[in-house]
Amino acid sequence: MNNIRNRKIVLASRPAGMPTLENFRFEEEDVPEIHDGEVLVRTLYLSVDPYIRGRMTDRKSYIPPFAVNQVILGGAIGEVVASKSPAFRVGDIVTGMLGWQLYNAAKAEQLRKVDPRVAPVSTALGILGHTGLTAYFGLLDIGKPQPGDTVVVSGAAGAVGTVVCQIAKLKGCRVVGIAGSDEKNKYLKEELGVDATINYRTVTDIRQAIIDVCPNGVDIYFDNVGGEISDAVIQQINHGARIPLCGLISQYNLETPETGLKPQPYLIINSALMQGFIIIDYIPRFTEGIVQLAEWLKAGKLKNAEHVVEGFENTPIAFLGLFKGENLGKQLVKVAD
Amino acid sequence: MNNIRNRKIVLASRPAGMPTLENFRFEEEDVPEIHDGEVLVRTLYLSVDPYIRGRMTDRKSYIPPFAVNQVILGGAIGEVVASKSPAFRVGDIVTGMLGWQLYNAAKAEQLRKVDPRVAPVSTALGILGHTGLTAYFGLLDIGKPQPGDTVVVSGAAGAVGTVVCQIAKLKGCRVVGIAGSDEKNKYLKEELGVDATINYRTVTDIRQAIIDVCPNGVDIYFDNVGGEISDAVIQQINHGARIPLCGLISQYNLETPETGLKPQPYLIINSALMQGFIIIDYIPRFTEGIVQLAEWLKAGKLKNAEHVVEGFENTPIAFLGLFKGENLGKQLVKVAD
Repeated sequence: MNNIRNRKIVLASRPAGMPTLENFRFEEEDVPEIHDGEVLVRTLYLSVDPYIRGRMTDRKSYIPPFAVNQVILGGAIGEVVASKSPAFRVGDIVTGMLGWQLYNAAKAEQLRKVDPRVAPVSTALGILGHTGLTAYFGLLDIGKPQPGDTVVVSGAAGAVGTVVCQIAKLKGCRVVGIAGSDEKNKYLKEELGVDATINYRTVTDIRQAIIDVCPNGVDIYFDNVGGEISDAVIQQINHGARIPLCGLISQYNLETPETGLKPQPYLIINSALMQGFIIIDYIPRFTEGIVQLAEWLKAGKLKNAEHVVEGFENTPIAFLGLFKGENLGKQLVKVAD
Repeated sequence: MNNIRNRKIVLASRPAGMPTLENFRFEEEDVPEIHDGEVLVRTLYLSVDPYIRGRMTDRKSYIPPFAVNQVILGGAIGEVVASKSPAFRVGDIVTGMLGWQLYNAAKAEQLRKVDPRVAPVSTALGILGHTGLTAYFGLLDIGKPQPGDTVVVSGAAGAVGTVVCQIAKLKGCRVVGIAGSDEKNKYLKEELGVDATINYRTVTDIRQAIIDVCPNGVDIYFDNVGGEISDAVIQQINHGARIPLCGLISQYNLETPETGLKPQPYLIINSALMQGFIIIDYIPRFTEGIVQLAEWLKAGKLKNAEHVVEGFENTPIAFLGLFKGENLGKQLVKVAD
């Protein structure tokens, strides 16, 4: 790769509270060499996701924290430009957990091939990747939607939320989306068929707003945000309600654990379930999910909501935008064609 | 029933916070008459339970509140002294939800026969009644104990807790009981075989105490109490932990919902489940539970922990004692032989 240099984004420092651009540093170095069993992957798309915030802090969680000066890792799509593995050829499109850099030397077993004939390759990071699978298993396996159920989705216009809303509609549910702008809510209603929406930024009384749009209570609350929105929804759950806990984006930048309304009394009086989950718990069932999601996508039953920022240098900005609610759908960075 | 008078205990006023004797009033009246399909039941035992506190407050829950001046209702055992139903004969021992009074006119369909040859009749209110079934289904159906699991039980020396501890031991788990006196903890260890105990009243740091006795974390937390004890346990749960929410006795006398540590972050990072339940959800499976509990009791694998107060007039005192942790095992009032 003669004159070409690699650029990468490393964790410069750990954020206290909301991360800033200063927590990231761009570095330039030689393109990495590959060894037997490895391939060189040129990055096409990077996935920026809220959970990455957790790895920037030095604490125990379901995945270890990044080290300072380490390249940031995330979902990525790339093109194989050199291969020392029989599993991949030059020109193959692949996906896997890769560094935020222009070139990754990756072990073959870290990668999965993406077939560009099935759908645009970017969908492998979104609706046909971990994002879509998170929506699929969280809603279907934990939420167990029944026709006629009222399903409330927070972060409804986000990457996971847009897919949850659509699957819930496919299952015959009445869907209420909570999002942070009128533009997002217009999209949810007009493009995704959501039945009712709440703009949590402009509503004066979130609890009353939920009562107003959920006259029959809440059967499933798919929680992407936590905080006051969740407190308000939990007070309206029905007997036997299910609450898949997918994320807590309102909480990720707090320096101490949030205190507030405890859900336990509402869970007890309603025999309700609250379940945390991480998509890697479902690895053995990924094929089932991908096949179904691809079928729905191909049939036009699911729409692919993507928010693509162009340019590797904009990756940290795109990441920070997640916490300001700037994305509608899956936030991606397009690094190269 | 010529000269005999009925005595009953009615809700005199709704408590604000901790209930007092002034919230109850004793009344005397004629023994009720029975109509076709009814039987007259002379009370032998009354069950006093924490959930009754909830019905003293005028708010929506899984069962409607008592009206002021209404007789308090609870689980009871009695003897049929007159019958206008083909289903019951004079002399039958029966159980059901009855008033806190010496005589109840009950519809036949409200009652279930108790066979005094199986076990002492009082067990129909405890280990072979709703109490035992609550422990059985909450632990087995929601907790799903596996051999070697660490099971933490709060309110371990209470009616439900004593049964949960024993079933968890039968399932091969390591059991940690949290209770409020050294005497109770001695009983849990020496009589029920609990592996480790914590006296939450004397320990200086409940969180550290849990870390100390749960070196491998917590797989199941059977929660009878809520509040700070639960906050401490939840911080030590393992991946895939299960938290059956049975009760919140620390919270029942609060005038506003408790705020504090939210469990959601711990549930997410551990893919953990928290589920409220009410024993009436399991009515279709009661027979399965009773058969198994009776078999274990008969085989000496379960011990029946009962705390019996004598005398109808002491019913309110026994009830108030629940909130002071005065009972070891199931709190009953013996009204007559």
